[in-house]
Amino acid sequence: MRAVVMHAPRDVRVEDRPEPRIQKPTDAIIRLAATCICGSDLWPYRGADEVSEPLPMGHEYAGVVEEIGADVHDIEVGDFVVGSFFASDNTCEICRAGYQTSCLHREVLGTGGGAQAERMRVPLADGTLVATPAMPDADLIPSLLAASDVLGTGWFGAVAAEAGPGKTVAVVGDGAVGLSAVLAAKQLGAEKIVLFSRHADRQALGREFGATDVIEERGDEGIAKLKELTGGLGAHSVVEAVGTHESMHQAIGSTRPGGHVGFVGVLHDVAITGEDIFMTHVHLHGGPAPVRRFLPELIDLIWTRRIDPGKVFDLELPLDEAAEGYRAMDERRATKVLLRP
Amino acid sequence: MRAVVMHAPRDVRVEDRPEPRIQKPTDAIIRLAATCICGSDLWPYRGADEVSEPLPMGHEYAGVVEEIGADVHDIEVGDFVVGSFFASDNTCEICRAGYQTSCLHREVLGTGGGAQAERMRVPLADGTLVATPAMPDADLIPSLLAASDVLGTGWFGAVAAEAGPGKTVAVVGDGAVGLSAVLAAKQLGAEKIVLFSRHADRQALGREFGATDVIEERGDEGIAKLKELTGGLGAHSVVEAVGTHESMHQAIGSTRPGGHVGFVGVLHDVAITGEDIFMTHVHLHGGPAPVRRFLPELIDLIWTRRIDPGKVFDLELPLDEAAEGYRAMDERRATKVLLRP
Repeated sequence: MRAVVMHAPRDVRVEDRPEPRIQKPTDAIIRLAATCICGSDLWPYRGADEVSEPLPMGHEYAGVVEEIGADVHDIEVGDFVVGSFFASDNTCEICRAGYQTSCLHREVLGTGGGAQAERMRVPLADGTLVATPAMPDADLIPSLLAASDVLGTGWFGAVAAEAGPGKTVAVVGDGAVGLSAVLAAKQLGAEKIVLFSRHADRQALGREFGATDVIEERGDEGIAKLKELTGGLGAHSVVEAVGTHESMHQAIGSTRPGGHVGFVGVLHDVAITGEDIFMTHVHLHGGPAPVRRFLPELIDLIWTRRIDPGKVFDLELPLDEAAEGYRAMDERRATKVLLRP
Repeated sequence: MRAVVMHAPRDVRVEDRPEPRIQKPTDAIIRLAATCICGSDLWPYRGADEVSEPLPMGHEYAGVVEEIGADVHDIEVGDFVVGSFFASDNTCEICRAGYQTSCLHREVLGTGGGAQAERMRVPLADGTLVATPAMPDADLIPSLLAASDVLGTGWFGAVAAEAGPGKTVAVVGDGAVGLSAVLAAKQLGAEKIVLFSRHADRQALGREFGATDVIEERGDEGIAKLKELTGGLGAHSVVEAVGTHESMHQAIGSTRPGGHVGFVGVLHDVAITGEDIFMTHVHLHGGPAPVRRFLPELIDLIWTRRIDPGKVFDLELPLDEAAEGYRAMDERRATKVLLRP
């Protein structure tokens, strides 16, 4: 089958790879209806994460179940399913507390997960996959694919930041996750949603998703602008959707005393001191989003066409043109690239 | 009047100082029934914080109102009152959200607050002070004094860590604040309360306050012991009541995924990286405790003799012997020293 493999930074190839097979009785094999390129795939692409061996790429997926192991009971062959980038049993104490990405038996489908392919193996299928009510209309597939990662991650960021009615929510980062956090904040009932963005197209989608205000400045200037908008106090809830030292500090600085930072950008070289968190009285919470916690609700919102998160995909390519997709995201010609196997 | 002044590290004197006077119409003057020495007073005493000018010490207080400014309406002359180490208006948006120590009009009575004295001025008296129902019996005064800081701080730590029914709570730090956090966790309904302590007398008081288990090991060994006690998972709620890099990392390492760290030790030289907080899925929240939020409830618990937090005082001295009190705490001969003006 055809699959995307990263051999080195900026060296992404579509190659023939062995068909995935059931390895454990809890596995399922799915045929991808669509897959995509993640912002986090750009870390190794740009050389920020090491590529020590050829990596089968991709961890976002939606598709049809073709085969199941003997111990899979809740998912059936023929189901259309969406799953998360970490496989989880969804029964351990940590899963039941809503942290499936820290499942005691989790299997990581991170970078190197092999979802940018025609087919893939999903471990712990019963705990990981959620089936749609029926085969989806074609136009719903991008949104269902978004639920697999960027929407679920933005949603967790908004929940971790305690976005809700009466709250002012600020979002640092205007990539697909940040834009999804705007959508989530809107759904969660936030009163005011401020997007930090300096790209006209992303600002436009942010406003369509629910942003009430846009701030183009960054760092201390951005924080000052946000404080102007919030009576000098800062936001109740701030979602950090980038992962750098600067963006994390912009998020903390944008939060009012007692407010909440939900951080979902994969943190790289971030240092936080006692001064950052002691006198500021912020709450900090985040990490790899337990997308599985939210999937049933997100699928329902998409199925009933109350949200359209698939709009974050602004470039669609055949799987064979994946290398061009990586280039487009690296050069910021695209926010998020959908690949059709 | 007599008052404690720190001139340099390890140079604490009791001197004649000018009587405090009403400076603003929102001030009150109180005569101290009792005051005490705080663990945070040891930072300058040990040279860890600079002493650039003679510091009138003390920020924990309970006593009788002797004079009020023209704009004080809720507190009357003759009231017995307890207040917090930060003066707050208790009406601004941040106060109403429960973060009086970040009050928009706060006045800091931190180290250098002048409460180790016969009398003191309290700014923003209506917002800062809470009166007891009547003049307290003498045996209640240590507990009411404890509410002013260590109890309120330990309580906030337990609340920030989301201690509650069904939870396992671990407390890092067996000083007066840590012991108060044990008491708070018990009151909040925690199922299991683990105190990290290697001092027999503090372990004993910890058990009296509600600790179900004691761990003598620190650092990675302490974390390993705690995990043994919690089915490998770690605690739901961890209170950090020391403030060092090591204690903060012991707290984070002791917390299960999705669990909460409430940190109330004044952080010194703490560095937190993305690795510490991203894959661990912990919540972090803390800072200077908004004691004022809890004072009405704490006073009621003390007044009705349901808690006896005054037991943290294991040495009582006349104010004139304050220097000996500092030595005793510095040398760990005493956990917490009460001073009688």
